[in-house]
Parts: sequence; structure tokens; C-alpha cells
Amino acid sequence: MGGSNESIEQTRKDGDRSSSLAICLVSGGMDSCVTAAIARTENDELGFLHVSYGQRTEAREQRAFSDLADHFGIRKRLVASIEYLKLIGGSSLTDQRIKVAEANLAAREIPTSYVPFRNSHLLAIATSWAEVTGAGSIYIGAVAEDSSGYPDCRPEFYEAFQKTIDAGTKPDTHIEIRTPIINMRKSEIIERGLELAAPLELTWSCYVSEDVACGRCDSCALRLRAFADAGLADPIRYA
Amino acid sequence: MGGSNESIEQTRKDGDRSSSLAICLVSGGMDSCVTAAIARTENDELGFLHVSYGQRTEAREQRAFSDLADHFGIRKRLVASIEYLKLIGGSSLTDQRIKVAEANLAAREIPTSYVPFRNSHLLAIATSWAEVTGAGSIYIGAVAEDSSGYPDCRPEFYEAFQKTIDAGTKPDTHIEIRTPIINMRKSEIIERGLELAAPLELTWSCYVSEDVACGRCDSCALRLRAFADAGLADPIRYA
Repeated sequence: MGGSNESIEQTRKDGDRSSSLAICLVSGGMDSCVTAAIARTENDELGFLHVSYGQRTEAREQRAFSDLADHFGIRKRLVASIEYLKLIGGSSLTDQRIKVAEANLAAREIPTSYVPFRNSHLLAIATSWAEVTGAGSIYIGAVAEDSSGYPDCRPEFYEAFQKTIDAGTKPDTHIEIRTPIINMRKSEIIERGLELAAPLELTWSCYVSEDVACGRCDSCALRLRAFADAGLADPIRYA
Repeated sequence: MGGSNESIEQTRKDGDRSSSLAICLVSGGMDSCVTAAIARTENDELGFLHVSYGQRTEAREQRAFSDLADHFGIRKRLVASIEYLKLIGGSSLTDQRIKVAEANLAAREIPTSYVPFRNSHLLAIATSWAEVTGAGSIYIGAVAEDSSGYPDCRPEFYEAFQKTIDAGTKPDTHIEIRTPIINMRKSEIIERGLELAAPLELTWSCYVSEDVACGRCDSCALRLRAFADAGLADPIRYA
């Protein structure tokens, strides 16, 4: 009987901590695909959120988003447009006048592909949606170390945003940000994805091209290095 | 000579702390008008940012924004649309199925006009724009106590968002959130506005109507009470 009560208690606690619905940010890239696969093992239902911000490869990313949502059988889907980031500019991803640099993974500088403060916009949208739908958590596939060095991919940023959520939503709203792959190496992310049968063949990472991946931008370079480190072949095509 | 050096040092510090450009969030209401008047006394140049989120009175608010920007002689203007908040819903301001309640200023509950986590979206946009333009501060006319009780109008929220900005922008970016009227009573805001010759006649506050203010929604009720407390007549017309 004691064991049985504990088990009920545990269920209730889990229910309180993370309501069975979670919001998952899905760009359509490899990291968000693996994050979604992890989120699915931890929740009863997922809502998939894609944010378009006027980036070069948006049409291809949206196709990847839809393919992933279909694969995971997701009914709750939201595509939000924040195209004002294109008006603001300041990034090679949103401003056609700034060239997407060829990758230099050894550089310590923040690359020109940095979209100023972008992940705050993504989390703000996810939080509003979570508050209205009653979701208990938000999954985001940020990667801190083994990535491009964007400031809004570091754990400190997510810790600060968590406090912003706690302070800026209703008293009875409880939403937890989850960053399950933030400390993984890119090759580990691939390995975790394979363990969970995440459909990496449906994802899109290239910053430049929408048909065949360029293989030379930061994002392609990180992806290719990760597959090489994992000793695996990338299922998508490269130029 | 000592005095002269101190003065140079002081100028340099001020220059570091707040570059001469500031971003000011301008909804078109009374609070943002007075905040802009304050911001003008503290900065060489202002950029005005208006965010449209699918609220009922958006067209009228945009007219107020333009009128205010013209009045203050603002060249840098950005109107950003986050109409996905309408898709997300959950507020009487963005969801036509939820009625805008008549004001009950004595109630302790969060009113139905609360737009979930809205001010985070506004600050995220302002921060991205500030980072790209090199602005040193963001002014927002949030009012904590003498207002509607929205969680994202409280000082704790702005303190948390400040840390999010510090963590999520480039290391050499320094942007300070300023909330100059957050602890003022609404009647004090009007008095401060009059001292600064803020054009309150150009502002719009009503949540419901776009031609003649309804006088009955939360926002009208707060405004009317504030003018009454200040012993002044509101320059706009009411039904």
C-alpha cells in the first residue's frame, strides 16, 4: 500500500511539475528535431511552434517544420511571423546586403549570422502560447559550447529568461524552459537523435540555399563536422 | 583643473552609460506619451517603436503614434507587427470572442484585457532594435501599482528582463531598461506630462472604440479617474 501511495503521489507531482502538454520550438533543423524527440519521451502532448523572421531559407525551413510535425503526429501547430527582424536587420540571415560568411569554426568572434537577441523573441512567443494553452514547459534546442557562440544560446540566458517568465506571467502560471541538448556536443546530439529514431533526413540546416545544402556556411559546417565526429553519413544532400 | 577633469570624466561616463540614442516604446496612450517626454529630456535622440498585436483599436493607436512622433520630431520610427498574438488569443484585446469587460478598478484579479506576457515581446523587439542601432536604453511606460494589475507591469519583471538582456546580447552591448513612471500614480503621470508640455490631446487609451472613447473600459476608467484626481479635464472626447 505504501508503495502504491508513493506511486500516486509521484504521478501527481509529475503532473504538477509539467502538465502533460509542452511547447516545442521547431526551426526545422537538426537540433530542434532531436529536442522534439526528447520532448516526446517526457510529455503526453506537444505543441510545435515555428517562428519565421525573414531569414533567407524560410520556405525550406517551413517545409522541414511541417514534415517534422507530420512525422511526430502533432496537431497543435503555430507558425508565427516576426518579419520586423528583417526591418531591424543587423544579421546576414535577415539582411541581403550582409553576405553569409563561409564558416570559420576556429574564430572566437560572434558570426555575422547572429540575429540580435533572436531567442528572446522565440521564448516570448512560446511563453504566451504556453500560458494560454496551459502548457507546463517549453523545449528549445539551444546548443551552447559546440556551436556558433551566439550570446542567446548560453545557459545564463535561459536562467535569466526563466526568471522573466516567473515574474511576467500570472501567479498560477508555471512554465519551465527546458534545454535538453544545451551542453551536448553536436556529434552527441546526432547520436541521441539516432537512439530516439529522430528523422534527421527531414531536417534543414543550411543558411544559404533551399534546394541542395551549400556545405560551406556556419550551419552546414557545424552539421558536417558533427556527422564526421559521430562517424556517420549525413542523410541530406550537399552541393 | 581638477574640476575640469572631473567634468570630462563625467561626460565620458554618461556617454558610456547611455549613448545619446534611446528607444522609446510608444503605444499611443497617455503613459507612453509622458514617458517619451521624459526620455526626451534625458537623451539627444529618440527612436520611437510601436508594436501592433492585433488589438481592437490598432488603427487609432497607430494614428496616435504617428501624431506623437510628428510632435516630438522623431525620424527613427519602427512599427512592428506581432499579429500572432491574435492567433494565440487569451485576451479580450485580441480575441473578438472575449468581451472587453466594463472596468472594475476595485477588483484584485487580473482583468481579461491581460495579453499573455505581452511586454516581453515589446522589450525583445526594442532590445533587438537597440542592439543594431547602438541605443543605450529602452524607455517603457509601464505603471505598476495604480494600474490594471498585469504581471508584466511590475518592477520585478523589468529587473528580470534586464538580466535577460545582459545575458542574451553581445558582450559589448549595454542596454538599460528605463521605467520612469512605474511607481507614479496615474494623476502624477498627468501632472508630470503637463510640466513637460506632453501633448496628451494626441493620445488614445480606449480599448474598445476608435472614434470617441467609450469611457467604460478599464483603460478609460483609469484615465478618467486620473484626470479627476489631478483636478483636470481630459482633453479627449468621451461617449
